[in-house]
Amino acid sequence: MKPRLLSGDRITGKLHLGHYVGSLKKRVELQHKYDCFVLLADVQALTTHYEKPEIVSENLRNVAMDYLACGIDPNQSTLYIQSMIPEIAELTVYFSMFVTVNSLRHNPTIKSEATERGYTQMYYGFLGYPVSQAADIAICKAELIPVGEDQLPHIEQTCKIIRRFHQLYAPVFPEPQALISETPRLLGLDGSSKMSKGLNNAILLDSTCDEVSEKIQRAKTDPARIQKHDPGHPEICTVYSYHQAFSPELASEIYDSCSQGTIGCKDCKKKIADRINALLDPMRDRRDTFSRNAKYVDEILIAGTQRARSAAKETMQEVREAMKINYFS
Amino acid sequence: MKPRLLSGDRITGKLHLGHYVGSLKKRVELQHKYDCFVLLADVQALTTHYEKPEIVSENLRNVAMDYLACGIDPNQSTLYIQSMIPEIAELTVYFSMFVTVNSLRHNPTIKSEATERGYTQMYYGFLGYPVSQAADIAICKAELIPVGEDQLPHIEQTCKIIRRFHQLYAPVFPEPQALISETPRLLGLDGSSKMSKGLNNAILLDSTCDEVSEKIQRAKTDPARIQKHDPGHPEICTVYSYHQAFSPELASEIYDSCSQGTIGCKDCKKKIADRINALLDPMRDRRDTFSRNAKYVDEILIAGTQRARSAAKETMQEVREAMKINYFS
Ligand code: SF4
Ligand code: SF4
Repeated sequence: MKPRLLSGDRITGKLHLGHYVGSLKKRVELQHKYDCFVLLADVQALTTHYEKPEIVSENLRNVAMDYLACGIDPNQSTLYIQSMIPEIAELTVYFSMFVTVNSLRHNPTIKSEATERGYTQMYYGFLGYPVSQAADIAICKAELIPVGEDQLPHIEQTCKIIRRFHQLYAPVFPEPQALISETPRLLGLDGSSKMSKGLNNAILLDSTCDEVSEKIQRAKTDPARIQKHDPGHPEICTVYSYHQAFSPELASEIYDSCSQGTIGCKDCKKKIADRINALLDPMRDRRDTFSRNAKYVDEILIAGTQRARSAAKETMQEVREAMKINYFS
Repeated sequence: MKPRLLSGDRITGKLHLGHYVGSLKKRVELQHKYDCFVLLADVQALTTHYEKPEIVSENLRNVAMDYLACGIDPNQSTLYIQSMIPEIAELTVYFSMFVTVNSLRHNPTIKSEATERGYTQMYYGFLGYPVSQAADIAICKAELIPVGEDQLPHIEQTCKIIRRFHQLYAPVFPEPQALISETPRLLGLDGSSKMSKGLNNAILLDSTCDEVSEKIQRAKTDPARIQKHDPGHPEICTVYSYHQAFSPELASEIYDSCSQGTIGCKDCKKKIADRINALLDPMRDRRDTFSRNAKYVDEILIAGTQRARSAAKETMQEVREAMKINYFS
């Protein structure tokens, strides 16, 4: 049996190249080696978008389609919907009993994200984010979580909660391990540090060829380059960073041509647009196939959710035994 | 259709005369008039007893038996177990998203109970008590909650949460109303302000006749009365308070006899012990009947829980619709 690996995304919009580079690409590779659970985290998305739940409902199938288009194979990976696994909420409630408010208040991610969102008030659900994350991981007995270095504290908090549960009751869960990978962060088209749909600086995975070309046209480059022969500074150019991400084998050539003023921005942009389109082309094909049968995506989500739910039910049965609240069994 | 009324108890020990006087007596009367849901709140008990879950499991059936012995009729009232309704946990999670930490921190009950328990740390689950209480009420669409005056803030907090949900999404729940009743608080045998199993000053509902007599013997009386003819001060005597609670029609006679020193404490205690035993006698009979068929109590709990759960499932379906996360319906 392959070890179980959990990944997923909050459902707040369609996925873009930043997601692909940061995690999807890796996830597609990992599915051959691990029993991959892919969580469509709609409840967690609602935690920060409770005022606009339509963002979640409108994007659930889009994200599922993005996954499938990327090459996540429903025969190898289990795609499932968080809100349809009530056992996650149950386990969150049990974990909540022994986690202190202070440990959550001092969680660096909670703190920084609250600041980022300009929260003047802390919401109870938002404060409990790390607890529900621990429940997501524990309920499916995930052993591996692919994360970047910056997310190690999350995994550590989950391990702490799990160890405390074991100390109070009985061993039920594996202690999850981080599968650390470089998770290169893709710059936004405007040169801002993060590609993000909210910042309107993203290339969505469902873009057409023309959309990609147009967006790349608008990408921020070195402002010093006015004429083709002006020597450029690729290290401050967004387009160059895309070359590094999507055509690393050509990046040093681009670097030199740009620095020496032997390539124009227009040509340089065309090259990367073509490269990105070449990456997206097979995704477009898969997307076409899947969208020809709209019901198929629903069937995949329903089947995946059923599989995840039966794992969750089994886990909750063990939790009830450990906590001695399995009254009738 | 009768309006639904929700009551219940945290499962932390067998019930005693304080519970009977404070709520059970009323509940038995109300079941003819309302669709009574009686919640065996094991999850809420665990919130404060997570370190000793056996307290909950050992007492679940005891409490159910106490209910039945008191005259709660399983054909009229729905007895159900909180931990077996995962929908409560789900609704708690959704409510949590829009309740601020500050509104919970300032909740007077949370504050005073945390102090009472000598918590040096506030636990996340404990802080969320009012949210899960709101979920208990909302999930079964309870319209009436029998409470004492001091519990009105709870109901008000639930109404606030429900109104906020309706404002954000769509109307789903009735706004529950408090059914205020005098809830006389029974003194402990030691004269302390509250009868409580934890303080070891309680007369349990499953006491034998002899146990009642012995406990009443030990009850704190007016220390000024040494000899029968010493004039007493019934207003400071625990036994007199029991006369008021259990034989109100004789209380003024006892008051006079005690004040005038025409009754001895021994006789006075015998009178009240007899009266309490007369109250408990029919409970003993019912308890006997039920305990002859141990399975019957389980069947009652299972059937009640099934009924409550199907109500909870229906409510959650409406919640999902309101929040637009009913993806496949
Ligand atoms: S040539 Fe390419 S790398 Fe250089 S500034 Fe223009 S777009 Fe950027
Ligand atoms: S006579 Fe009765 S009321 Fe008076 S002190 Fe004794 S026990 Fe109390």
